[in-house]
Amino acid sequence: MRRSIATVCLSGTLEDKLAAAAGAGFDGVEIFENDLLACPLTPEEIAGRCADLGLAVELYQPFRDFEAVPEELHRRNLRRAAHKFALARRLGADTVLVCSSVAPEAVDDDALAAAQLRALGELAAEHGVRVAYEALAWGKHVRTWERSAELVLRADHPAVGLCLDSFHVLSRGGDIAGITEFPAEKLFFLQLADAPHMRMDVLQWSRHHRLFPGQGAFDLAGFTSRVLAAGYEGPLSLEVFNDVFRQAPPGRAAVDAMRSLIVLEEACVRRAPATADTAEARRFAEPPPPAPAPEGFAFVELAVDAESGTEVARTLAATGFAHIGQHRSKPVELWQQGDARVLLNATGSSRAAIGAFAVETGDPEGAARRATALLAPALPRTRGAAEADLTSVAAPDGTAVFFCRTGAADGWLGDFILSGSPGPGRTGITAIDHLGLAQPFDAFDEATLFYRSLFGLAPEHDAELAAPFGLVRSRAVTDPRRRLRLLLDGTVLRRGSWAPAVPDPQHVVFATGDIFRTARALRERGAPVLDVPANYYDDLDARLALDPGLLAALREHNVFYDRDGDAEYFHLCTPILGSRVFFEFVQRSPGYHGYGTANAPVRMAAHRAAHSCARG
Amino acid sequence: MRRSIATVCLSGTLEDKLAAAAGAGFDGVEIFENDLLACPLTPEEIAGRCADLGLAVELYQPFRDFEAVPEELHRRNLRRAAHKFALARRLGADTVLVCSSVAPEAVDDDALAAAQLRALGELAAEHGVRVAYEALAWGKHVRTWERSAELVLRADHPAVGLCLDSFHVLSRGGDIAGITEFPAEKLFFLQLADAPHMRMDVLQWSRHHRLFPGQGAFDLAGFTSRVLAAGYEGPLSLEVFNDVFRQAPPGRAAVDAMRSLIVLEEACVRRAPATADTAEARRFAEPPPPAPAPEGFAFVELAVDAESGTEVARTLAATGFAHIGQHRSKPVELWQQGDARVLLNATGSSRAAIGAFAVETGDPEGAARRATALLAPALPRTRGAAEADLTSVAAPDGTAVFFCRTGAADGWLGDFILSGSPGPGRTGITAIDHLGLAQPFDAFDEATLFYRSLFGLAPEHDAELAAPFGLVRSRAVTDPRRRLRLLLDGTVLRRGSWAPAVPDPQHVVFATGDIFRTARALRERGAPVLDVPANYYDDLDARLALDPGLLAALREHNVFYDRDGDAEYFHLCTPILGSRVFFEFVQRSPGYHGYGTANAPVRMAAHRAAHSCARG
Repeated sequence: MRRSIATVCLSGTLEDKLAAAAGAGFDGVEIFENDLLACPLTPEEIAGRCADLGLAVELYQPFRDFEAVPEELHRRNLRRAAHKFALARRLGADTVLVCSSVAPEAVDDDALAAAQLRALGELAAEHGVRVAYEALAWGKHVRTWERSAELVLRADHPAVGLCLDSFHVLSRGGDIAGITEFPAEKLFFLQLADAPHMRMDVLQWSRHHRLFPGQGAFDLAGFTSRVLAAGYEGPLSLEVFNDVFRQAPPGRAAVDAMRSLIVLEEACVRRAPATADTAEARRFAEPPPPAPAPEGFAFVELAVDAESGTEVARTLAATGFAHIGQHRSKPVELWQQGDARVLLNATGSSRAAIGAFAVETGDPEGAARRATALLAPALPRTRGAAEADLTSVAAPDGTAVFFCRTGAADGWLGDFILSGSPGPGRTGITAIDHLGLAQPFDAFDEATLFYRSLFGLAPEHDAELAAPFGLVRSRAVTDPRRRLRLLLDGTVLRRGSWAPAVPDPQHVVFATGDIFRTARALRERGAPVLDVPANYYDDLDARLALDPGLLAALREHNVFYDRDGDAEYFHLCTPILGSRVFFEFVQRSPGYHGYGTANAPVRMAAHRAAHSCARG
Repeated sequence: MRRSIATVCLSGTLEDKLAAAAGAGFDGVEIFENDLLACPLTPEEIAGRCADLGLAVELYQPFRDFEAVPEELHRRNLRRAAHKFALARRLGADTVLVCSSVAPEAVDDDALAAAQLRALGELAAEHGVRVAYEALAWGKHVRTWERSAELVLRADHPAVGLCLDSFHVLSRGGDIAGITEFPAEKLFFLQLADAPHMRMDVLQWSRHHRLFPGQGAFDLAGFTSRVLAAGYEGPLSLEVFNDVFRQAPPGRAAVDAMRSLIVLEEACVRRAPATADTAEARRFAEPPPPAPAPEGFAFVELAVDAESGTEVARTLAATGFAHIGQHRSKPVELWQQGDARVLLNATGSSRAAIGAFAVETGDPEGAARRATALLAPALPRTRGAAEADLTSVAAPDGTAVFFCRTGAADGWLGDFILSGSPGPGRTGITAIDHLGLAQPFDAFDEATLFYRSLFGLAPEHDAELAAPFGLVRSRAVTDPRRRLRLLLDGTVLRRGSWAPAVPDPQHVVFATGDIFRTARALRERGAPVLDVPANYYDDLDARLALDPGLLAALREHNVFYDRDGDAEYFHLCTPILGSRVFFEFVQRSPGYHGYGTANAPVRMAAHRAAHSCARG
């Protein structure tokens, strides 16, 4: 199937948008009227530019407020349409989108609407174009796909067909089963957008909060599969109005968009019944290799400079990690406790930040091929002779993501000269529980899709926190077996000049089976632990009436507490190390799947206070 | 009346917030639980800090989900309340806010709710505090102020009273006339917030989009006057949840908040019936001097450096302005055509930007006193002997605003050595029509209130534009006689790294009585005019079916067109001069009061294209 994107999805001038769409590998575009009006190129020059870029002009849109009006206005509407049909031809587009009317003059009269649509089809045919009619979810009289489909059938003109838009259909929560019955030859266009569930006016929701498929909560694969089952053969075209994407770099947003379509196609192929499998699959490009099941973190790598490297190494030692290996060719140290491995990489000049992490899977080569097929940017890597050939790609926030197999004979551990053993966990740390990755403002939804698509992780625990320096959103992505947990967070609005000393900290979170054993061991070894305000514990007492002994222990050891039903979560943190990273130690009951997110604002203020004290 | 602010209005840690509130002159604060939990100071230390800063702790809040629950939960709620009452006492707060329950366990039983509120009052009295009960607009059973008032009366305990919150009351559009009848001794607290009208879930609206009084669309003066008429004598306390303010510099936001209260008090005094005038007025601090009626722009001043100064001067000459004067002691040139005066000030190093403008009024001294009373920051100014003593203040975007009287013998013109005369308008320009002032992301609402309060301007023509590089909001503020028009615009989200060459242009807009005469004169004089795409005119033709002669003239002269009914607006622009300013020339029919805002996206793309060409 052809892959298309509406120019309205992307930021910039029309020229910027076309270049971005072509760069991401789209086959075609929908050209939005506002982009055209503001463009100094003539329609013919735009058509030529698209041809040069290998882009078909799949659609011109929108033509508004047409159907079911008094005769005199209908005549004026036809004049207006004639201009736009001629324009579409000049652009090389054979289809013009007509949305259901929101005009006060429109009347609730299907016979009149169908007759006027038929007249519009007649005019379109004269211009050598066709009309794709779409029900806006907030149309004056036509708001459902069923009613728009009924009008298209009733108009009964070969140049009048249906445009289905997943947002308009799914936002209304309507029944989509009947789509498969609609005649294929009248299915002219398919527009795709995802969205989060929101309680707001549907027009505002549509105009500001659409997302690319896989970034929201709609069942795009179910919807698209039905439209394909009906026999639709036009392009899959993304039409996403999103305030953030509207001002994000268009080249990046276009790649994000293309990734969403590849994953959507894969899901559609997977949903097709076995008998239809080959026929269905033939309509799509080769799907990417399947997502390999993640087994956990092989390692996390912190980029450090000399000063922060010393601080982090001292903290690792104090928290019971052993420095057990040195890279053969690079200034990289391997530290380990239990199955938690931390690399300190001093090749750059970062003041301590998560530079990379490695995902263990049974098929790292397949994982790397999948990442490439999903347009994840490959990172260059120099390696010494006989060193492991590790592939890595860049996540949206720049973090390098490696794929590897720890136990393998030719694995990454072979690149290290081992000089010690992790021994028994000295402070009870058993593994990496999760990583907390602060996302740049406009990378949050992109990051969700990136991790979701590369590793088959699912988002959960969406939260919005009233943090001390502004609202923060937080979302976990994890695999069904919860071997790989990532906690993404980011500010709801991009920060300005007023910001805390540590605006976007990252954290490496280690699991322990006994938080108080770990806390005592940390204290004995002199590890730095973040002070938690007494007021926090007074509130815990007021809210939860915890056992006084437990409360005293929490208070004594600066341990945060959360619970979900009977399942409990205990966590304590170090201060910020270097410029933006801290360690956290957690004990979770088997039934607790959260991240203690409600405690994050208190932790942020405590980090700010500690950081201000330490740095002056 | 005492002036108070809830800590939740401001960004930062509790310590930051208290310092900001005190700095802006507030008498007291409401302390929010989340701010307290995250604070390392003990409640007694917080009380001490407040006392040192001259702040009363007016309220502790919120206590949630209390009333109308089964007995066992009621007992647990009382235990929870006892903790919080003790805490309030330690803070030195005599009032605790209790919001109506949103808990699933709450039942719809007024007798039970009242009995449990009475028990809560009993417990509060034991702790030496009182309970202010508030109906949340989204409470499970109690959503209206009338029902919360009924429960307070029915609880019938001296420690149980009412908290009225303007948002919860006005967002529901309910009847507020009855407020004046409520017994004064049971009116414990008054919280004030404004908001724009929005079609969305009321909880989201409340938590994200509240504004300070005078920044939104609610009738705060009407509401507050009724509460005062009932005999309320507690503080006027701002409680504003706003995503932008939550991360804005708290010192600035606190000043903005205080300005909103001063103006609200002024409006309440003005609304009081003549007989009650003195009694009502005695309750407030001295109101600021009244806003003087603006007569128009005395001048606009562009800050330039040598290179941009040359470019701007050349453009002024080409657009028919005459260089008629030179400042006696500074490198400032006076250019004039008709009544439009432009100063070029080369004392700084700005690459051409609006540095200042001057408002003509009959009482510049009164205007300056009003600005000072409204906490507008006074700007320092050096002046030569015998030069006019012009007062200026800084608007939120940093623009200097002067107050002056052009015709006066001792006026600002006397500071210039006049060497020519503006003569008859050479290109038909008669005056400054308006100024377009791009606002920094977090100054938009502050700017609205600033201009509204200083000059009595009213906001109108709110618009949100899908501009090429992201959404842009736009709003005009003008006086009733439309002598002083300012057009504020700003991005809906703060910009990131992807941005056009000219992200936030300002414009000086000159009025002409005949746009085509002006356009021809500009062409003859070689003035630079921004190219408008042909596609724009094709669309005008399709939409409006303009007279072909008119359309041809618009197209020939790159004139934008808008209309409102029969009233028309014609405008054309120069390219960007220096780094961020351009000139615009407009002809408006008497009935047209807009700004051609719908054309702005086309203009922005054209500026981007022209700028990219010119600068490479």
